[in-house]
Parts: sequence; structure tokens; C-alpha cells
Amino acid sequence: MPLKVVIVGGVAAGPKVAAKIMRLNPEAEVTVLEQGKFLSYAGCGLPYYVSGMVREQKDLMSTAVGVVRDTAFFQKVKNVRVLNETEAIEIDRAQKRVRARRLGETADLWLPYDKLVLATGARPVFPPLPNVKLKNVFTLHGMHDAEAIKTLLAQAKARDVVIIGGGLIGVETTEALVHCGCRVTIVEMLPQILGMLDWEMARLVERHMESHGVKIMTDTQVTALEGDDRVCGVSTTRGSLPADMVILAIGVRPNVDLARAAHLALGPTGGIQVDDTLRTNDPNIYAVGDCVEGKNLQTGQPCYVPLGSTANKQGRVAAINICGGQDRFPGVLGSAVCKVFDFCVARTGLTEKSARQHGHEIITVVVPDFDRAHYMPGSQLIMLKLIVDAPTRKLMGAQAVGPGAGDKRMDVAAMAITAGMTVDQLAKADLCYAPPYATALDNIITAANVARNKLDGLVSGITAMEVKQRLDAKDDFVFLDVRSPAEHQQERLPHSVLIPLGALRSRLSELPKEKEIVAFCKVSLRGYEAAKILQGAGYTRVRVMDGGVVAWPFEKAG
Amino acid sequence: MPLKVVIVGGVAAGPKVAAKIMRLNPEAEVTVLEQGKFLSYAGCGLPYYVSGMVREQKDLMSTAVGVVRDTAFFQKVKNVRVLNETEAIEIDRAQKRVRARRLGETADLWLPYDKLVLATGARPVFPPLPNVKLKNVFTLHGMHDAEAIKTLLAQAKARDVVIIGGGLIGVETTEALVHCGCRVTIVEMLPQILGMLDWEMARLVERHMESHGVKIMTDTQVTALEGDDRVCGVSTTRGSLPADMVILAIGVRPNVDLARAAHLALGPTGGIQVDDTLRTNDPNIYAVGDCVEGKNLQTGQPCYVPLGSTANKQGRVAAINICGGQDRFPGVLGSAVCKVFDFCVARTGLTEKSARQHGHEIITVVVPDFDRAHYMPGSQLIMLKLIVDAPTRKLMGAQAVGPGAGDKRMDVAAMAITAGMTVDQLAKADLCYAPPYATALDNIITAANVARNKLDGLVSGITAMEVKQRLDAKDDFVFLDVRSPAEHQQERLPHSVLIPLGALRSRLSELPKEKEIVAFCKVSLRGYEAAKILQGAGYTRVRVMDGGVVAWPFEKAG
Repeated sequence: MPLKVVIVGGVAAGPKVAAKIMRLNPEAEVTVLEQGKFLSYAGCGLPYYVSGMVREQKDLMSTAVGVVRDTAFFQKVKNVRVLNETEAIEIDRAQKRVRARRLGETADLWLPYDKLVLATGARPVFPPLPNVKLKNVFTLHGMHDAEAIKTLLAQAKARDVVIIGGGLIGVETTEALVHCGCRVTIVEMLPQILGMLDWEMARLVERHMESHGVKIMTDTQVTALEGDDRVCGVSTTRGSLPADMVILAIGVRPNVDLARAAHLALGPTGGIQVDDTLRTNDPNIYAVGDCVEGKNLQTGQPCYVPLGSTANKQGRVAAINICGGQDRFPGVLGSAVCKVFDFCVARTGLTEKSARQHGHEIITVVVPDFDRAHYMPGSQLIMLKLIVDAPTRKLMGAQAVGPGAGDKRMDVAAMAITAGMTVDQLAKADLCYAPPYATALDNIITAANVARNKLDGLVSGITAMEVKQRLDAKDDFVFLDVRSPAEHQQERLPHSVLIPLGALRSRLSELPKEKEIVAFCKVSLRGYEAAKILQGAGYTRVRVMDGGVVAWPFEKAG
Repeated sequence: MPLKVVIVGGVAAGPKVAAKIMRLNPEAEVTVLEQGKFLSYAGCGLPYYVSGMVREQKDLMSTAVGVVRDTAFFQKVKNVRVLNETEAIEIDRAQKRVRARRLGETADLWLPYDKLVLATGARPVFPPLPNVKLKNVFTLHGMHDAEAIKTLLAQAKARDVVIIGGGLIGVETTEALVHCGCRVTIVEMLPQILGMLDWEMARLVERHMESHGVKIMTDTQVTALEGDDRVCGVSTTRGSLPADMVILAIGVRPNVDLARAAHLALGPTGGIQVDDTLRTNDPNIYAVGDCVEGKNLQTGQPCYVPLGSTANKQGRVAAINICGGQDRFPGVLGSAVCKVFDFCVARTGLTEKSARQHGHEIITVVVPDFDRAHYMPGSQLIMLKLIVDAPTRKLMGAQAVGPGAGDKRMDVAAMAITAGMTVDQLAKADLCYAPPYATALDNIITAANVARNKLDGLVSGITAMEVKQRLDAKDDFVFLDVRSPAEHQQERLPHSVLIPLGALRSRLSELPKEKEIVAFCKVSLRGYEAAKILQGAGYTRVRVMDGGVVAWPFEKAG
């Protein structure tokens, strides 16, 4: 008897399971049920389809050689039966069968299975707001959303757009709509956008988005949408905003209706609970992708981080286990990246905030550095933040913001965290070096060395946030800029005094020994040199501001 | 008494040691002796200065904020005394002092030290060829070489250039000179350029260089240079080549004259022997950078891999140990990257060849894949090769060739090798994913999965080299192209027959069951699907060609 597998969900993880099963067991009978019309499309590419960067709908639904992944493709190439526009309605666990109904038909199908795979994905969260069902209020979750948004844009009927929610999808959609000529405002309830980053790193992203004309309102709650038929505005706790279009981007929740009705166990995050073979509490039912609860590799705790990369990995693991093999999916670090105009924004592991919440005694560094030799054309800055567990010196997390290739450094950081490496080990990593690709000491190695200096007590750092608080409190300290006069002229931090590094040794008399001195420069390498000169000259209260001017998240004087 | 340190060498590792010592011990008295005029310049950037991509000489000698690192800079900013144009002549180990002489002076200086650091770098190898001292024969090792080459180019006196040696420097220089309008021929004694790669990967680079007009002569020995005053040609075992300029790029050797004269221990590679604190066999003498022998992290054996990245790391380690701290430099993987026209060429760990030489029982995979979502503009292929130890399933080495961002994947591979990860672990790495930066399964994860399939016996691979041998031997097998007719029309492999994947199930009758079938496609994903379909249909002798058409290193039919 051939193995009978039914897979519910045909967008990402589901087709992956199907294809891998057929490769492992060509005799298997695999049926995929997909509620929508489209199969196996690249949901992550939707913002780029909206912006026009991806030209055609079919580009998102084709293989790399341009073959559209439709039902005929799955049948011919994979020998997988796909029923699209078919809704799975009920799981009969006792008799191991699924009830389904095709669009427009009234009769039910009963599909028997030996193994069932739930790949039901996620659903966007609709906030309980007055008028949330007005016209021109969208999510950006499926192809139909993208088409509807594109239609409105094509009619030139969306000039003012309000994005509700400043997470990954909100930010990616913002960029797409700015490219389409919209005036975009992000309204975010929390004090920052992109909660995957620490505040000061998110603030750098916000400033960059603002430089592209995006209005960002943090600490702001939406109270209602306005309009009769079409949306025309958004009411918030900080006033009203005009809006021809509203995008709801406050997040997604696992789609667990079928699983819940079948009494499969759900986890505390609301996702389907699975073990590391991706089996649910029913030994004949697996679940993969955005509908399952994940496990954080560092904390061991449940988490919900729906991503296409995870879905694909899980699909393969589930297929192997279903076919009698042994594979496991250990969990995630929460690695993520997004393009925000000219910035690459990436992260992995624990944030400073979450590391502290988990009781880690940590140090952090913010180190701006070039992504390749500074003399090479196209060389760009990356603001790199590392979070390090002080007692073990292990890397806990990392964040990269800036125009340079931060994705590469975050992948290196993800590997270091996975391997449990200390910053001392990371600092010795034999990474590839040539001027077009890296600096001789790659910036993640430099950041690791700065962290080692902090851990070893060689430098006393101070964060930009603490400096700002002390400036605001009119605390008495010397805020020492050691850049060149030209740099100081161009852009200054408030209340700073200038003594260029090259002149510092000869101008020590200008600096009082009894006051605390906070040194900084553009990136704080010269700031560190200055601190060392001052310490050598007997100054005992010297600190260096993390990240210098380029990582200063507050207003500067022009 | 302040710590007295003398450092011989002021280009890369030496200044790094000096700066770090002064930060750790501001009381120290550090003197750097540099034979040349220029200090602390980016030697790795010379090819880009020759090509004009880096505009000014001073760009290579400046900090990221444009301050030239001259003797005054070192004195003012670092409090380090630098004597340039000063040659170290002798080490008097008994009395702990160095004899030196400044250019144009006759009197010697005796510099006492508590600790001495040798950072004497490397020297280009001059082959023992007739006429090697003719005019317009250069190396590209120092700033003076770059200036001489640029002068000749500016006079438009170099049209035909022969590069002797196809290693990293030869290849980088080739690109620079092609950009300057030269006709360049590389003459390489070995069967391939870039010995850091396996043959078939190097062949892909050669094909790419040939597409940019470079002539590559492998298995070819230079027998003499021709000319009276200026060079005018190069005689080789395969005939004569016209040449207005010749670049000698057959490699570098550690500069160990001082060390040898002082009876410091040298290693089998000719470099100065150091322990992992970078101390020589004299406890008061350290050595760093291109003059020292390295250790291969995987084999534990001595190696000589002179690189700016290693020099900088070693400089820091030596400084910490000299100042009473404890740090160690564990060794290298031989990670390297270079830009070759539109290709990124990168590698880490053992090659297939070296892994076999070290007795590893290995499997290899060659997997071409896109560096970001294939539907994103700018998405580019990377040909990725992995070398995996079969018994332990650990990643041993990796190579990337192609227009895509291979440097990122090689850094990930370097981390995996450092951590001793299996391909099973690598396949689960939580790497950052978004369409502008990666595919949902990053290509190094896909390659790891292909390797797992091979290790698990799910696919029987065959290399392009083996296929070619069998084609040449007129071996009887079906060379099955499963691409589309359009792809087949555009570019074919010799003696291949076409059955597109989508038609395969219905056209099985065309394929004999008794013959071996070697399936392939563009990248061999469809080839793998085809093999699975055939196996499912009862074909028992089916193999998939590694890497498909894009990784085929031989001639194709247009």
C-alpha cells in the first residue's frame, strides 16, 4: 500500500513537504489542499511586486527557470495532486481523514490519510477599530492584497497612506509605497518601529526613513479609521491623519482553526505545538511553517517567528520524518533582515532588552565601521551592535543597521551564536578578506574586539542614551569631540567641545582633571584613542561614547 | 622603567602592534623601523590603485577619515616613534638591541629593546629566468611597483602584458590591467590558475576571464624574457608572446633575513616559527604578519598564507602578550576572496584535493543557485562547492565562484568549519532571509542539503570531469538534458539528448532501462527530480551530474 499523505496548505511549507516526500518515496500518494487559487508563491516578495521592482505576478509563482508552479506543474513534474480553491473543513482524527470542499461545489470530499501535514500559515491581525472594514483598507498578506493595492495605485487614487504597525511588513510596505509616489505615515503604538531591534538601532532606521520623506509616529495609538465608504483618514491619540489608503500591518497570527477544532495541542504563543520532528500531539499529524509555534534556540522557550526560511527548513524535516527517516528542526535564533531604502537592517539572537529580561548580565557595544576597505568606491558604513554575556563572554545577539552589507555580518553572528562562541573566538575567525568585500579586520571582528576591551575593563563605555539623559539633566561633564574642525563644523552633537585628536596631547591643559570626560568621534575609534591618551595623562574619569556621531540616535546640530 | 619595544616593519602588522601596545600601556616606548618611505599603507589595495578605481596614492595611506598615517601622525596620535627609510641590519639578542641605519646616513643606530617584534613581511619571488631584470618587468608588491606600472600605463607604453603566475595577485593585477586597456595573457605553470580552488572551480574563473578578453595559458612554463633594454616578449614552452610589460606574480616568500641571521627558528615553509602567542624561540622576540609561518586550523600543520587580515589579528595578539596579557592566535583556514571582473571568487578550508591528500574520505557537491530570490532584479548565480568528510559528515571546505555574493556564504562556511559543524547542523542554521539578500533556503543551506542527500545515498552524483572523460572515451550512456527546448537550443552539452522534465513521465519509453543515464539541467535541481522520476519508474542506473550546465567547465555547443 502506498503511503497516503494529505497536506493542508499550498503556499510555502506545504509544497516543500510534498516535493520532498515524492523524492524520498516516489510511490507515495500526496494530495495538497489549497484554499486560494495560487500555489507555491513567494509571499515574501509581495512588497517588491507592489513597488514594481518585481514586474509580473507570475514571477512570484515561477521556478528559477520561469516555469509556473500551477497544479499541472505539480502533477507532471512532482506527481503531486494539488486541489486549489479547496478548503479543508475538518480533520477526523479517529478515521484519519480530512473533509474538504472545492470552491463553488456543495458536496464534500473525504480524503483519507496515513499522515496529515498542516501548513495552514498565518493570518493578518485585524485590529478591533471602528471602520476597519472601509474600502481601501488593506493588509499585505496574500496575492489578492497586492493586486488590490496595485489597482488602487494604478488609478492614482492613493496619495496619502497610513501604515498601522511598524514591524517588518509595515516597513517593507512603506518603502514599496514611497517608491510608488505615496506620502506614507507609519503609526506605531510602541516607542519604536521594528521591535526586533533595540531602541537606538531602530531609531537609526527611523531617521533614515524620515530622510526619505516617511513620517513616523511612535508611541501613538490608532483610535479609529475615518470615512463613509472609502477610508479618508485615521484618528490617533496624536491627532488625525489624512489617508486615501490604510495598510494594517500590526502582525500575523498562526492560522490554527482546523488544528484547534481537531483538539490538537496549541502552545502559549497560539501556534500549533510540535516536537522537534515537527509532529503534533497526534502521531499521524505534522505541522510546519507559519502555523506552528517555534522554539528559541538560546532560551529554549516557545516563540512565534513566522518566516519563509524556517517554513522551508521545516518542510524538509517533516517530509523526512514522514517517510521513515530521522531529522529534527532544533529551533530559531530570530535572524531577520530587511531592506529599508538604502539601509540593510538585520539582526540575530537576543536583543539587549530580551537578554536582560532573561537575566543575562551583559555588555553591549555599538561599533560603526565600513563594510569594505574604506578607500574602495562603494564602501559603506554598518552600525553594528553586539550583545555579549559578560560571565561567559559568549555572543548573545547582534544587530546591523546602515547602507553596508550587514546581512553578511549577521549571518556570521548567527553561526557564532549557534556554535556558542565567545567574542574571543569570534575575533579570531578566519573570514574572507579582500578590499572589495571587507576590511582587513572585518567589522564584526572589530566589534568583537571592542567588546573584549569592555569585558577586560580596558575601556569604559557610555551609551548615547545615557549621554542624552545626562545632557538633558544638565549634568556637569565634558562632552569631548575629537574629530577634525571640518567634521565638527559640518555636524555637531549638543554641548560638545572640540579638541581634535591630533592636538589632544598638546592641549591637555584645557581639560579639567576633576570632571568626567566623555570622548567621541565619528565612530568612536578616535574617541577610544583619546580616552587612552587622557588616561595616560592621569585623567581617571574618562569614558567613550558607543558608536560616535554616526550612531547618535537623537537630533544633531547641522 | 617604561617598556621598550622595537618593531621592525611599518606597513601592516607592525603599526598594529605599536598602536595596540600604546593603548594597553601608554608609558611604553615604542619605536617602529621601516625600510621604505611609506607607512601603514594598504598593500592589498594596490591592484585597485593601478586600475584607477582607487584614485590617489594617499587614499591607501589614510585613515577612514582621511588623515595620512605618516611619521607625524604616529607621533602625535599614537605617541609612537617611527623611523622610516631606516633599515634594521642586525639583532643582537644577547644585549637585546637592534642595529639600524637611516637612508643616506653612514652611522648606525643601536636601539635597545625589552621586546622586539619582527613584522618584516614578505618579498616577491623572482624566477631565475634569463633577462628577468629587463626594463618594464615588475612585481606588484609595494607602492613603488604600483607607481612604476602606472607611469608606464600613463605613457601608453604597455599594450601587451604578460602576467607570469595565476595566483591571487596575478589575477587581481590582470583585472586591473584589462581595465586600463591592456591585452593580458596569464602564463601559469600548473594545470589551473588560482590553486586555492579545485580544478573545475578554477576553470569557471578562467572561462569568465576569457570572456573578458584575457588569454590564459595553463600547463605552460616561461623559459625566458626577451628584449635588449626593455622587455619585448616572453618565451614559453608553448611559444613566444609579445609583451610591452611583464608582471612577475609567482608568489611571495617570507622576509626572514634578519631572523635567520639572528638564529631564530624558521619553520618548514620558510616563515619564522612562532607559538600561538606569536613568540619566536627567543622569549623576547615576537613575529607577526607575512614573515611568520602559520598553522592550519584543520590539519594542525604548518602553512604559509600571508594575508592582511591575519597580519592585523596577529598584531593585536602579540601586543596583548607583550603587555603582559594573554591572547593567542589559533591559526587559519585559508579563507580568501577576490574580485575577478564580475565574479566573486572565494574559498575556505580544505580543497577536495587537499582533503584527499590528508586522507579524508569525502564527498563533494557543486550546487549553483541564486544569491537572492530569483525574481529580484540583480539576483545572481553562485556556483558553490562543498567538501564534506563522509564518516563524520563535517564540512571540510567550501568554494564559491560566480557573480553572486559568494563572500557571504564563504564566511558562513568558515564559521561552520571553525565550529566543527556537520552539514546536518549547517542545514538548520538560522540565516537571515529576505528576498533582496537571500533565497528562502540560502544557497549554502541548499548545498548542505544536497550533500546530505549524497551522504544518505539518496542521489548518485557524478562530476562533470568524470562525464567528460566518459564522453571522450565514447562510453555508452544516456546524457539526459531535462531542461526546456529553448534552453537546450541556446546552449548544449556535447552528445546530450533532450527530454524536458515536464514531459519525462510520459516519454519514459524513449529511455532504455539497461543503459546508465546521467541526468542534468541548468543547475541540476531538475536533474535530481528527473533521477527521482526514473528511479520511481524502475531505472536503477541513474546519476545526476553535479552543478548542471552552468558549472560545466568544458566547451559547450552554442
